[in-house]
Amino acid sequence: MVKVENYLLENKELKIIQRKDMFNFSLDSVLLSHFVFIPAKTKTIVDFGTNNAAIPLILSQLTNANIIGLEIQPEAVELANENIDNNNLTNQVTIKHMDILEYKVDPNDKVNIVVCNPPFFKVGEKSNLNENRYLQIARHEIMINLEQIIQSAARVLENNGRFAMIHRPDRLIEIIELMRKYKIEPKRLKMVHPKFGCAANMILIEGRFQGKNGLIIESPIYAHNDDGSYSDEVKEMFLGDKDEEN
Amino acid sequence: MVKVENYLLENKELKIIQRKDMFNFSLDSVLLSHFVFIPAKTKTIVDFGTNNAAIPLILSQLTNANIIGLEIQPEAVELANENIDNNNLTNQVTIKHMDILEYKVDPNDKVNIVVCNPPFFKVGEKSNLNENRYLQIARHEIMINLEQIIQSAARVLENNGRFAMIHRPDRLIEIIELMRKYKIEPKRLKMVHPKFGCAANMILIEGRFQGKNGLIIESPIYAHNDDGSYSDEVKEMFLGDKDEEN
Repeated sequence: MVKVENYLLENKELKIIQRKDMFNFSLDSVLLSHFVFIPAKTKTIVDFGTNNAAIPLILSQLTNANIIGLEIQPEAVELANENIDNNNLTNQVTIKHMDILEYKVDPNDKVNIVVCNPPFFKVGEKSNLNENRYLQIARHEIMINLEQIIQSAARVLENNGRFAMIHRPDRLIEIIELMRKYKIEPKRLKMVHPKFGCAANMILIEGRFQGKNGLIIESPIYAHNDDGSYSDEVKEMFLGDKDEEN
Repeated sequence: MVKVENYLLENKELKIIQRKDMFNFSLDSVLLSHFVFIPAKTKTIVDFGTNNAAIPLILSQLTNANIIGLEIQPEAVELANENIDNNNLTNQVTIKHMDILEYKVDPNDKVNIVVCNPPFFKVGEKSNLNENRYLQIARHEIMINLEQIIQSAARVLENNGRFAMIHRPDRLIEIIELMRKYKIEPKRLKMVHPKFGCAANMILIEGRFQGKNGLIIESPIYAHNDDGSYSDEVKEMFLGDKDEEN
């Protein structure tokens, strides 16, 4: 039932426990954690729907900010806390067992950064009857949908605070419209292509609450080489942020 | 005053006359002409703001459809007609000396495809006092703005007809919002990066009037090699569409 994965970084080893029957930590979490821009003065980063806390664990390698993971599924909260304990990160990472929709912050202490690796599919879309409830919740907009995620981020972010998300290209139009609806101005967009010459299969987007407009479309990421192995760029992310180390 | 450029394609040579004091045919026209998808059954393609007819001339190499160029500046119309004559394309390409805003079509004979390489800058933005009136009109939204271009395309396109445009990344958000406002659903998006590892400096976008939603973000184009020469992909466009020839 419980599977242990080793996750190597530059300077230490993170052990991330995952359950085979639940959403599993994957490339998405690594890409998002390495995409979001974290200014040195950042105090608080909140991960919406943190599951087993993979994103907070990866982020802990890149920042000293406090990281809060919100998670509604009790079994995932248990796993997340186990991962935080095992990696001695209880001082930096906190899990809140709650619904994102209920998350509120003190108006004088708003959040600097919200990150989210959300369910990619609408309810009913590409539904797989073999999926268990855990996976359905992680992959489909059952507990929360895109609009509710973006609205919740806008509610807790400070002015100019950042919202960063990974999603599918075919929902980019909707993402942009919803971000603007809730005053999160898209500022950075980065495509993830599975290989050179292929259409993008993921997008990374960062917006700023009440930000000025002006979008930059960054150099894209190619996740794999032609032989299917991870590209050097992705391998470096798995090893930790080398640019920060040198 | 008058400058002659030779433009080589796979099977014949297009001679494009340009005036040094007016907008000059450039990479943009080549990228847009090679980006737009032209189904075999296409009857009519309209180029909004055709200037010296560079886009119709390039498109004539890729399709047998009728191509109409709209142009408001009389000096550009003169040049465009000269180019069409010189290249023996009077049977395929027609220039209409008119304002895009005034362009109307018979409701039973709507346009299949509209292409546009519009002025990239808002009035006042990056304005260069040394620019003459011709260049100002080509580069700045003096005679027409983005919303009017998109609205005009929607007015003349058949259902599912295509609108393809090249523009700057920092206006992508506005482009998407305006396309949706006028029921042109963005379907294809392709970034143009000046070099590998650089942010995009142009975007190519294609939408379909009254189309279903679902965006594909295609493999990007790198315009230049590290040494500044054109990339093979772009060189092939300058030589003509090899894929179509083989």
